[in-house]
Amino acid sequence: MKVDGRHYRSIWIAADGTTVEAIDQTHLPHRFVIFAMTGLADAARAIATMQVRGAPLIGAAAAYGMALALREDASDAALERAYATLLATRPTAINLKWALDEMVAAVRNRPREARVAAGYARAREIADEDVTINEAIGRNGLALIEAISRRKPGERINVLTHCNAGWLATVDWGTATSAIYMAHDKGLPVHVWVDETRPRNQGASLTAWELGHHGVPHTVIPDNTGGHLMSHGLVDLAIVGTDRVTAQGDVCNKIGTYLKALAAFDNGVPFYVALPSPTIDFTVVDGLAEIPIEQRGPEEVATMTGRTADGRIETVTIVPEGSPVANYAFDVTPARLVTGLITERGVLAATRPALAAAFPERVESAKLAGRSAAG
Amino acid sequence: MKVDGRHYRSIWIAADGTTVEAIDQTHLPHRFVIFAMTGLADAARAIATMQVRGAPLIGAAAAYGMALALREDASDAALERAYATLLATRPTAINLKWALDEMVAAVRNRPREARVAAGYARAREIADEDVTINEAIGRNGLALIEAISRRKPGERINVLTHCNAGWLATVDWGTATSAIYMAHDKGLPVHVWVDETRPRNQGASLTAWELGHHGVPHTVIPDNTGGHLMSHGLVDLAIVGTDRVTAQGDVCNKIGTYLKALAAFDNGVPFYVALPSPTIDFTVVDGLAEIPIEQRGPEEVATMTGRTADGRIETVTIVPEGSPVANYAFDVTPARLVTGLITERGVLAATRPALAAAFPERVESAKLAGRSAAG
Repeated sequence: MKVDGRHYRSIWIAADGTTVEAIDQTHLPHRFVIFAMTGLADAARAIATMQVRGAPLIGAAAAYGMALALREDASDAALERAYATLLATRPTAINLKWALDEMVAAVRNRPREARVAAGYARAREIADEDVTINEAIGRNGLALIEAISRRKPGERINVLTHCNAGWLATVDWGTATSAIYMAHDKGLPVHVWVDETRPRNQGASLTAWELGHHGVPHTVIPDNTGGHLMSHGLVDLAIVGTDRVTAQGDVCNKIGTYLKALAAFDNGVPFYVALPSPTIDFTVVDGLAEIPIEQRGPEEVATMTGRTADGRIETVTIVPEGSPVANYAFDVTPARLVTGLITERGVLAATRPALAAAFPERVESAKLAGRSAAG
Repeated sequence: MKVDGRHYRSIWIAADGTTVEAIDQTHLPHRFVIFAMTGLADAARAIATMQVRGAPLIGAAAAYGMALALREDASDAALERAYATLLATRPTAINLKWALDEMVAAVRNRPREARVAAGYARAREIADEDVTINEAIGRNGLALIEAISRRKPGERINVLTHCNAGWLATVDWGTATSAIYMAHDKGLPVHVWVDETRPRNQGASLTAWELGHHGVPHTVIPDNTGGHLMSHGLVDLAIVGTDRVTAQGDVCNKIGTYLKALAAFDNGVPFYVALPSPTIDFTVVDGLAEIPIEQRGPEEVATMTGRTADGRIETVTIVPEGSPVANYAFDVTPARLVTGLITERGVLAATRPALAAAFPERVESAKLAGRSAAG
């Protein structure tokens, strides 16, 4: 989408044809910084330190990371090491493993000298496929916003979102935001309540930044606010992204998503989850019981980074000295609280039959892998 | 409770017998600062800028503020002006109006020259009554914690709390924390999950600070975390405070309380609200429809204050330039989500009959005032 009037993707191949460049999201919203990755270590570090983040972008970055690794060493042993290194960068995102498996499949049966070109080609495809998928998600989600607009023509349509499932979390368009950008570009009066999303503030830092740069009306709110807004009729629908959806439609997403889903359910507000189908993990059924929840470093909770009145970037500690903190990164929203899953193949019920019917080939491949949860 | 081994109240009369001193809570948790109030303007500013905050402490501060105002001018006209000035400092807290009404009742039929002494005497009583009430609340809440302890002897008892309903929000003991301090002092292995409580971070700043100084084990968590903890059996009970409870038991409290109550209900976790009875407003029934929700300044959401690595206190902006923010200060938790109200007269069901039976004289006085909601 647009930054200062120019169109960007979140990750791309540089003019030299081999270096991978991306927007360094750790500097947003204070500075717009582009960084270069020339080898496996750069890509692994970029994912682990969240210079790139968001499940679909992690997938694309991991794919490009494999291509970079192949340039360094195209042997089978190096391929395995690169796979293991990249897989270990983040424990929760299913797209990471999916993209790495795709990359291995694309190169492993080829002679060494053909692997680099094949790797780059597949990585480019994975990135392009993400854009195509997000456009399809956007068209499907747009129909939901248009339906609301028909019920109250000309009135503001309030969408609540949590964290950043925007274009910065993907290669372009975003998942949760794709329909919002399309509605805005069509002239619908859409307004977005942006959850701040503590502890890393990806809503306030990233979603607000990208909506603002594209010109979409929005308001940043503390994470505590959504329940109040919903109970006063100030939210027409919620759309969030997800890091992993199970075979029965449970949704693992940024910590706090479950609380908003509860509030939406309690107030009859439609609660949608937008996702590209690689995010569905047909090998897992019960999200609460089966998905391990990443715990991240305490400094994300204990400190906050921002800009001072005189323009410096400063990190301050906001908890008392000696007080321990906990930093659970995700929670699981049970399928019963989800109105629908907005996928590239339509808006689906968050149920096992609906998911299996829409993606039969994925169920099949999960079965073949001997890990079926859908049978 | 204790600060560096010494017992403090949150507000007190200084050695000169007239100046009112209090802990300046805007400097916590970074600096422990005591400030002095010598007139009405000091007291009004202290309440409006939240140097003192928390419904019961606001009541006590308003009472002392009236005493200070009487020293400046004990006329009927000045009494009315002081009442109006203090009432306007915060729109939501019911204790504010209650304390001001008590002060007017204590002095209005007295000759001018007797008003200052009568005012100070009544203000002291209001402060002492708060301490007595909180001790009673603590004893009633302690029984709930002891019951949990009997079910799992020796195991950690996890209590979740939101915002600061600690001793800093009252004159001493706190409301939500009173039972926690008593359980800890009795040797029960209680541990507190402290919601950060954006946007003003009263949980991370105040509750964590006071629990730490008293030696109570605790962990600061982002507001988004409670649902995850509850869905994994990591919370035994939630205890929060409140700014106003309606005649039918709806609970107005710091924004985000409603979300935690929803999560508690969804997971079968007991959700208790601790309150002194002046917090009950028998003139209001439907909290959602009738309680106006204060909107505070955008800077509380857009900025964060903390200490830098080299010990300076710095305020940083955490939202993108040009992004609007909204700052709703409270939400309403419907009575159906509240397991019980811990009052000085026992643990009550959050229902109109239970509240009316426990506080018949309050229902009566609300009726006499022609504003009854209980009939």
